[in-house]
Amino acid sequence: MSTHDPYTHSQVVIIGAGFAGLACAKGLGKSGITVTVVDRRNHNLFQPLLYQVATAALSPADIAEPVRRTLGRYDNIRVLLGEVVGIDSTGHRVLLKDGTSLPYDDLVIATGSEYNYFGNDGWKPFAPGLKTIHEARLIRHRLLSAFERAERATDPAIRKRLLTFAIIGGGPTGVEMAGAISELARQMIHHDFKAINKNEVDVLLIEAGPRILAAFPEKLAAYAHAYLTDIGVRVLTGRSVTKIDADSLSLGDERIETSCIVWGAGVRASPAARWLGVEGGQQGRIPVEPDLSLPGHPDIAVIGDTALATDEDGKPLPALAQVAKQQGEYVADRLRHKLTGRTHTAPFRFHNRGNTAVIGRNAAIFDFGSWTLKGRMAWFLWALVHVYLLVNFEKRLLVSIQWITRYFTRQRSARLIDENHGRDDDTSEPPDKPFENPPAAGR
Amino acid sequence: MSTHDPYTHSQVVIIGAGFAGLACAKGLGKSGITVTVVDRRNHNLFQPLLYQVATAALSPADIAEPVRRTLGRYDNIRVLLGEVVGIDSTGHRVLLKDGTSLPYDDLVIATGSEYNYFGNDGWKPFAPGLKTIHEARLIRHRLLSAFERAERATDPAIRKRLLTFAIIGGGPTGVEMAGAISELARQMIHHDFKAINKNEVDVLLIEAGPRILAAFPEKLAAYAHAYLTDIGVRVLTGRSVTKIDADSLSLGDERIETSCIVWGAGVRASPAARWLGVEGGQQGRIPVEPDLSLPGHPDIAVIGDTALATDEDGKPLPALAQVAKQQGEYVADRLRHKLTGRTHTAPFRFHNRGNTAVIGRNAAIFDFGSWTLKGRMAWFLWALVHVYLLVNFEKRLLVSIQWITRYFTRQRSARLIDENHGRDDDTSEPPDKPFENPPAAGR
Repeated sequence: MSTHDPYTHSQVVIIGAGFAGLACAKGLGKSGITVTVVDRRNHNLFQPLLYQVATAALSPADIAEPVRRTLGRYDNIRVLLGEVVGIDSTGHRVLLKDGTSLPYDDLVIATGSEYNYFGNDGWKPFAPGLKTIHEARLIRHRLLSAFERAERATDPAIRKRLLTFAIIGGGPTGVEMAGAISELARQMIHHDFKAINKNEVDVLLIEAGPRILAAFPEKLAAYAHAYLTDIGVRVLTGRSVTKIDADSLSLGDERIETSCIVWGAGVRASPAARWLGVEGGQQGRIPVEPDLSLPGHPDIAVIGDTALATDEDGKPLPALAQVAKQQGEYVADRLRHKLTGRTHTAPFRFHNRGNTAVIGRNAAIFDFGSWTLKGRMAWFLWALVHVYLLVNFEKRLLVSIQWITRYFTRQRSARLIDENHGRDDDTSEPPDKPFENPPAAGR
Repeated sequence: MSTHDPYTHSQVVIIGAGFAGLACAKGLGKSGITVTVVDRRNHNLFQPLLYQVATAALSPADIAEPVRRTLGRYDNIRVLLGEVVGIDSTGHRVLLKDGTSLPYDDLVIATGSEYNYFGNDGWKPFAPGLKTIHEARLIRHRLLSAFERAERATDPAIRKRLLTFAIIGGGPTGVEMAGAISELARQMIHHDFKAINKNEVDVLLIEAGPRILAAFPEKLAAYAHAYLTDIGVRVLTGRSVTKIDADSLSLGDERIETSCIVWGAGVRASPAARWLGVEGGQQGRIPVEPDLSLPGHPDIAVIGDTALATDEDGKPLPALAQVAKQQGEYVADRLRHKLTGRTHTAPFRFHNRGNTAVIGRNAAIFDFGSWTLKGRMAWFLWALVHVYLLVNFEKRLLVSIQWITRYFTRQRSARLIDENHGRDDDTSEPPDKPFENPPAAGR
């Protein structure tokens, strides 16, 4: 099959162990085809619930699993922890940061996306996105520390800054974060922070476009907008952020002081287009053929957020987990056929399983295309679906218990301020920074 | 009652929210006495299970709870996140790092202990102890990364270093860590690391004294020694560490290369003796009166690991959680009596509830003084007791499920290599360090 070094050669190399890469690897499990999965992290992360880690409801390990464990049962799949820095498509090799390379017969690129700061990458440390465990911990640290400091601060301006939280971007992540922060604040103040009044907390959801949840039907977005307003979130639409620093953001002339900014305003594809020397399309995504191969390179497939695939009407498919999974399964199927000498000509077809966002306790929205659902029933369905989608029975049980406990007690189980967190990597708020004020009264 | 600023004054200030401080605070709950608890961390940590976080069996939040939540139900108790830097015992004030101070009528010092490097504090970054979540995560990161690198390394010397793990100190923590690392290694190799052979893994438990578990009866220690040897731990007694650096430790002339060193060789009390300007006793602990007050200062109590209290025979009480808890309850009782004008003269008496250490799956030891227990029954008892001691029902359920799952599947649920962990605070092994060798065969 190949003249490459037998110790390092595998027929298929998959870059990235997210929804797309793992679906593809599982689809090739027990196929007899040798597969190498390379990722720079040792775990796959269930990103749809990452906002619950950031808001202290779940622990990182509840929504993450080692890639080795997920794929450990397949003897034909090898897992490597490594960082890809380039692709030699002529020599059929994936180049790694350590100077080594992985030869392949077929390559699958599933490297996902990252947050797009639209040319303002300097904002990133002050306004982390929500893609990694590290970012979720950083946000959790800033949120919880702000309440601890506000409990002691007496200066009204300082209290106002500490208790103002800003989420930029009115997509599902932004809506979920805004709702969760508002609920976290109310619950903690009610139980634990005796010197903070709930009217002092200001949660801002800032969206540049005319409405939040642009990907959803207007009536669902209107419901979410009303619900968020009701639980104390100030939704600002048609407002663009013009500046971000350690303690504030600016909306044109208006400067808002804040202790925690979360970025969810847009994504761009990973740098795979640069590795391949091709022109990236919308959001840096790589345009692909109907069978998800790279034009002119039938041995390279691009899937998930990295791929710019289109539906039957030529409309770009959204960067969603369900698209990624279906594409991974499709490409696994195609490669099985190809490597056993059969042909496989049907193009990829996306089957919409419904688009959802959760807004708060008992409130979520679902868009199934032909019909929609909102409110308490949607919230239960959301919870059921998300528990079901977790990788294994143990995680499902752990998350269910924490959700059920939280539902009844309104307590969040992961409210840890990591003692060394922030000192080295959180430039804006060192934990050793003295409190701004003499201690205030307990009550 | 006091002429101090009413906004900052409370009758009792407790420094430290560990076993001792929390027991004391709870004992003063709903007493009408105003209490302030100050700690530099926002959570209390169930340290007896911290080794399970370090070996990827549990998540930090499973064994930690916000102090505010623990004490939230008591209206007379205020919680402050702050770092104490000194005590003005004449002016009756606790001095905080931010320059403010907390006045008190009565002070309780429960600041615990830290690991003692016996004058070699430079070893600390290379051989972290196991006192904080941060340290547990650091050790977990080093352990898991070592396996990831060994999976790809081909040079025998590098593989040997990567797969050698050293635990220094043969007390309960050292024994628990050695057993857990050995089991983690076997389980991971069996399932997930196809290029590592279990005979390559070398777990060293190094003890300077003549035997491990010096605080336990000799026959229990002999059982633990034999069990550890059986599961692949090399127990070296009578050997002292003379040097530690990023990649190795030395036992006199013998240099052992290793990828992960854990320090458990001895503790010393927190710097409270220095704050008070008193002479610390054994391990820097502060000698106290039979009622746990500081000699000459009836308004200052010292409890937990910080206190050097003695039993009826004049023997120092050990630095154990059960001692700390009982002392906290005793002092709360004494202060309730004192502040309601009653006298309370009975000295503190420690009631031994049994001393335990867990060695591995189905193996633990218990020493109840008059009788002992070892093996599978001891292990079940250990698990029951430790689940029972967890702070609340939710944590008990979460930990139980993870233990039961692990018991039957031998899978550990928290095997996460934190993506940004180590870059800033782990000086020995940056995660971006290239792999030592070209990738080895999957199989």
